[in-house]
Amino acid sequence: MIEFWYEFASTYSYPAAMRIEALAEAAGVEVVWRPFLLGPLLHAHQGMTDSPFNVVPIKGKYMWRDMERVCEEQGLPLTHPTQFPRNTLLAARVAIAGLEDGWTPAFTRKVYEANFVADQDISRPDVLEPLIAEVGAAPLAVLEAANGPAVKARLKDHVEQATARGVFGSPSFITADGELFWGNDRLEQALSWAQHHTTQNTFGEHA
Amino acid sequence: MIEFWYEFASTYSYPAAMRIEALAEAAGVEVVWRPFLLGPLLHAHQGMTDSPFNVVPIKGKYMWRDMERVCEEQGLPLTHPTQFPRNTLLAARVAIAGLEDGWTPAFTRKVYEANFVADQDISRPDVLEPLIAEVGAAPLAVLEAANGPAVKARLKDHVEQATARGVFGSPSFITADGELFWGNDRLEQALSWAQHHTTQNTFGEHA
Repeated sequence: MIEFWYEFASTYSYPAAMRIEALAEAAGVEVVWRPFLLGPLLHAHQGMTDSPFNVVPIKGKYMWRDMERVCEEQGLPLTHPTQFPRNTLLAARVAIAGLEDGWTPAFTRKVYEANFVADQDISRPDVLEPLIAEVGAAPLAVLEAANGPAVKARLKDHVEQATARGVFGSPSFITADGELFWGNDRLEQALSWAQHHTTQNTFGEHA
Repeated sequence: MIEFWYEFASTYSYPAAMRIEALAEAAGVEVVWRPFLLGPLLHAHQGMTDSPFNVVPIKGKYMWRDMERVCEEQGLPLTHPTQFPRNTLLAARVAIAGLEDGWTPAFTRKVYEANFVADQDISRPDVLEPLIAEVGAAPLAVLEAANGPAVKARLKDHVEQATARGVFGSPSFITADGELFWGNDRLEQALSWAQHHTTQNTFGEHA
């Protein structure tokens, strides 16, 4: 088992989201999708109110060039969005709302493509509605649930869990035994760790 | 050809320094060693006067754990130094002084081992002297040269070059066509890029 912690505004989380299922399946590792918000953590840990890639422009310049190379290697299209970062609160809530019915992974990929390929404003309900429909869910009912107290509480809980477990960036991967791996380029190592460090639950079965 | 830009206080530069020559040789790529000082760049770009891993403790905690995993995978010993980061001005100057005679790579590895394995204070001349002797150079003459105007000017030039070429962290790798790769975990990609993107010089030969 591996937990995939991701923020929709995070550039490197896009290639991670696009490849994690195939790699995890090949490794025989189950993926648990954990959408969260990175903004509160960046503010708490580093006093930042904007993306680190905007706060430190020389890092931003490098990141966009590196992303071009990473996406080219994965065969993924990439557009430098006209707005970066975008507000991801609603998209994260919708992703939470989809966990029970299982469409969160497909929706997540569509949101990353909307943001980093189609250059759409993923903060807007009218942008998210067709994406929800495309994964087979009912847009209006989902948006209503996304703005309800249960989803809000669960997203808040994800942010608190991420903080408590040492997450400070996206994507992050956490294995069953609590090992934290940060970055799309650590996905292979995280999966390998998950394969070789299984933990036993109280019933003596491997988790 | 690949330029290896490194700062002696940088943790991830230690495993990079230990493996770059074998990987580069296997790839048929020449390594050009470029010791520099990261402190002035961190200050200029991010206003930092300490290691980012001290400024943001949650990142530091992750980095030390990640370093344990990276070093274990490479079969390298690792000690969390009692002082971090250490002042690396003199060590960088000595490394510059060795470029002409070719002992910089061997000296560099010894400094990283002194700092991150033996937990020695690499800011001290009496710590560096035996390391200089071990690579076959004359400690007193080298330390005199290291404190001379030519070496000081060259180290200053390295810092300026690094800044001009977009470097913001260590280790960084720059290929002949100017591609920048940041991080020990990008070494393989940088070497692959160097192999597949050779540039032609004015005589039509591959550089």
